Amino acid sequence: MLWSGWGDPAKAAELPAPVRRLLGEALGVREPAVPAATFGEVRLNASTLPPGVLTLLAAVVGADHVRSDDDARIRHTRGKSTPDLLLMRAGDGSDAPDAVVLPGSHQQVVEVLGVCAAHRVAVVPFGGGTSVVGGLVASRRGFAGVVALDLARLNRLVSADPVSMIAEMEPGLRAPQAEQLLAGHGLTLGHFPQSYEYATLGGFAAARSSGQASAGYGRFDDMVAGMTVATPRGTLDLGRAPRSAAGPDLRQVILGSEGAFGVITSLRLRVHRAPSLRVYEGWRFGGFAAGTAAMRRLAQEEAGPTVLRLSDETETMIGLAKPAELGASSESGCLMVAGYEGEPGDVAYRRERAAKALAEAGGVCLGPEPGEAWARGRYSAPYLRDSLLAAGATVETLETACFWSGLPRLYDAVRLALTGSLGSPLVMCHVSHVYATGASLYFTVVTAQAPDPLGQWAAAKRAASEAILRAGGTISHHHGVGRDHREAYAVEIGDLGGEILRGIKERLDPEGILNPGVLIP
Amino acid sequence: MLWSGWGDPAKAAELPAPVRRLLGEALGVREPAVPAATFGEVRLNASTLPPGVLTLLAAVVGADHVRSDDDARIRHTRGKSTPDLLLMRAGDGSDAPDAVVLPGSHQQVVEVLGVCAAHRVAVVPFGGGTSVVGGLVASRRGFAGVVALDLARLNRLVSADPVSMIAEMEPGLRAPQAEQLLAGHGLTLGHFPQSYEYATLGGFAAARSSGQASAGYGRFDDMVAGMTVATPRGTLDLGRAPRSAAGPDLRQVILGSEGAFGVITSLRLRVHRAPSLRVYEGWRFGGFAAGTAAMRRLAQEEAGPTVLRLSDETETMIGLAKPAELGASSESGCLMVAGYEGEPGDVAYRRERAAKALAEAGGVCLGPEPGEAWARGRYSAPYLRDSLLAAGATVETLETACFWSGLPRLYDAVRLALTGSLGSPLVMCHVSHVYATGASLYFTVVTAQAPDPLGQWAAAKRAASEAILRAGGTISHHHGVGRDHREAYAVEIGDLGGEILRGIKERLDPEGILNPGVLIP
Repeated sequence: MLWSGWGDPAKAAELPAPVRRLLGEALGVREPAVPAATFGEVRLNASTLPPGVLTLLAAVVGADHVRSDDDARIRHTRGKSTPDLLLMRAGDGSDAPDAVVLPGSHQQVVEVLGVCAAHRVAVVPFGGGTSVVGGLVASRRGFAGVVALDLARLNRLVSADPVSMIAEMEPGLRAPQAEQLLAGHGLTLGHFPQSYEYATLGGFAAARSSGQASAGYGRFDDMVAGMTVATPRGTLDLGRAPRSAAGPDLRQVILGSEGAFGVITSLRLRVHRAPSLRVYEGWRFGGFAAGTAAMRRLAQEEAGPTVLRLSDETETMIGLAKPAELGASSESGCLMVAGYEGEPGDVAYRRERAAKALAEAGGVCLGPEPGEAWARGRYSAPYLRDSLLAAGATVETLETACFWSGLPRLYDAVRLALTGSLGSPLVMCHVSHVYATGASLYFTVVTAQAPDPLGQWAAAKRAASEAILRAGGTISHHHGVGRDHREAYAVEIGDLGGEILRGIKERLDPEGILNPGVLIP
Repeated sequence: MLWSGWGDPAKAAELPAPVRRLLGEALGVREPAVPAATFGEVRLNASTLPPGVLTLLAAVVGADHVRSDDDARIRHTRGKSTPDLLLMRAGDGSDAPDAVVLPGSHQQVVEVLGVCAAHRVAVVPFGGGTSVVGGLVASRRGFAGVVALDLARLNRLVSADPVSMIAEMEPGLRAPQAEQLLAGHGLTLGHFPQSYEYATLGGFAAARSSGQASAGYGRFDDMVAGMTVATPRGTLDLGRAPRSAAGPDLRQVILGSEGAFGVITSLRLRVHRAPSLRVYEGWRFGGFAAGTAAMRRLAQEEAGPTVLRLSDETETMIGLAKPAELGASSESGCLMVAGYEGEPGDVAYRRERAAKALAEAGGVCLGPEPGEAWARGRYSAPYLRDSLLAAGATVETLETACFWSGLPRLYDAVRLALTGSLGSPLVMCHVSHVYATGASLYFTVVTAQAPDPLGQWAAAKRAASEAILRAGGTISHHHGVGRDHREAYAVEIGDLGGEILRGIKERLDPEGILNPGVLIP
């Protein structure tokens, strides 16, 4: 993973000439005066860890698995939000952990937490490092130091149960590794978020990830049948049955806890037979309202595509649903991608039923080409962001969700807030997760970098967050809370919601060493 | 509701002569020597409420809505488990609340909790009074008295949103009232547990109820999009979107909290268009293993009946799936009921697909008659229990769930434990809730009453609970925890699971007045 941007540098996306022209002419984007810092130019603070702590940690995980070199520290600094990237491009490594610890077992995680609790060292659980909400920066206040707990060595498929259709997998597995291991058993998880190529199973669970095929396979939290969690107070083992009436669902307390309650060391996950057929196709709707009405109908009739995604007029015009064709589109209306995965007979039935509903709702089928173009480019948007940042644009995404009847108001409110804050940005939106009762909205914003791009985005983000809260949306449908959404989250759940979280935190992590400053209001 | 048994006394079920003969000959059941106590013979303790508390409560809800007469106290004593009924039949009213308070609004509930917290009065939220796990008996230790908070006056359909397919409803609505109000909008909840005729929406949510059509409409906790909760610390309002990545799902903390964290005063519930067609039919399988394998296939292929239920060989032989024909059956193998509700085209497709899978799995279709017989008798088993108790039998149910691969072992373990404890009881079982990864098991036990029927059942229940825990099942799939399962529940969730609950409790209910002794280990 590129330390200052996304993914494999060899796959860097060159901006097409028409896009560069468009950026300059329509948005006033100019190449930045100062080039991005090189790796060697990143400024790190000296470690503040008390002497002896590294020795104690090495005694638990082995000396090879405790690293405090600059390379390890820089590669575990923050996540992949646009502010994170802007700071790294400016050579700011001030949020680097003092050391990186790589445990090899659940028991080692428990012991590491014990050492850190005893010495007041903050611990940041680290999976793929793909947080876009500041989930990987612990507050140092009151702590002797900060270590990143990198779970990369916990990367086994422990077992696959083809009767219960459950696989036990470790949290450090990146999604493609997990899919490859499951493919050996003819199975799939079906979880394909945009971060797919780098994110880990533990991160999906801790941050309540939702993938592009959520309409078919469900969200990641739907997939978690059971889990083992290491806390500073010991081990928590949850999930004896698919569902239970034995009290609150405690799995749902750990899911979304972003490392603040404990470290997930094992997941029992619902798996599916790998589909023998995948079909993605495009549909055009006259407008966003007509397209969302069609999606709602599909969601409420459970006439289930596996993938369902609708771009608004602007995103359709820019062609963002098909990144390889960015800026080349002269399409009007709104592009919908509907995908079906499964056995041929099942795919045929669902496709026919959905097609009938979509046509009745005013959709025009565009055939497979737009669907396949979407599928080809589905993981490439983060590469595009690096190129746009380098070209002098501020580009970022944000997302929310609400019930269907509130969706038009929420859409308008967020667009208005972004436009009000940024002047005349390009604001694009799509719906990519639908439920019987509501849906998500995912916004992409592009504007010319101001002299202080961090301040520029912070103001826009604040305006958007306030608009989301006022319009009754949730502050995040699938990115999480982290540090960036913590204030808005406190408003969303109210004082007593915060009390619930603090009550749990106090019992599982009395010294407060786990990801301090993240999530808990 | 009959104070000492179930439902409408006019609907009391007469035991057919062959059943009486069977009870006597096969199980040695003899008519009890002592007749059941009459209403007037029930012994109540004097109220321990401090003077002035009733006046304060009356100032909040109105004098007409605070009752401390014997009738109100007896009718709010305990729930409807077999031990509850045995105690009432013995004239034991010692668990009666000191008074019954009927608030008329959310604000009144908040104020009642304030008065009770200030005066250390325990509060038992009371809906339909149908708990079968001792969820309605508060511990008096450390409290000045106990009041039942009857939510019957919170019985409105507040709003129906046909766009989001969400209805806001109050917790005191009994399920048939709720369905009737929704029917006025062409809508249904689709929640039909055996307690349907008396249980309330608030109780369904607080105890994580699951209905007979869970395969089609989901569990009650699946239906809760949002909720308002009154606590001694104020109001909690949860649910801005169908799903969110903004932290743990706090709705899932209140669902299943059994009145120990707060009182649910409003529910935003997912609703469906009322189905235009309902078809229930019977299938016969050679054995329980073959039948459960067929269910698993349907659940994993999502080839969805709305109702799916399989009786084991004993339950099939006794005819318990069709209570009106009890004891008259000479059927062999295992009876499955598969039901489909929806629009005709959809029903036809699902039925055809499921029928193909069931036939391939060795099932023989018996046509609609057994399905319709099940549907006719679906709420009558609790009446039957009253008649069996009166005839001198000990009869009770218990239930659990686990993942598919553990189901055969769990089934054997529970049967063995019950048989070991009770000598030679009749033990029947059915599966009535299926998921992709597992299923529930529901046992009905009939045996001759021992001289101490309470002690007899307590021992059998303890043996069954220990067997469930050892075999890896959950202590309850849909009845809840209450007082009866509290010890087993503590083992199930472990020390840290208990810490989570105590941490939440401490923050929302610092004086511990809410349902003390229930749920929280």
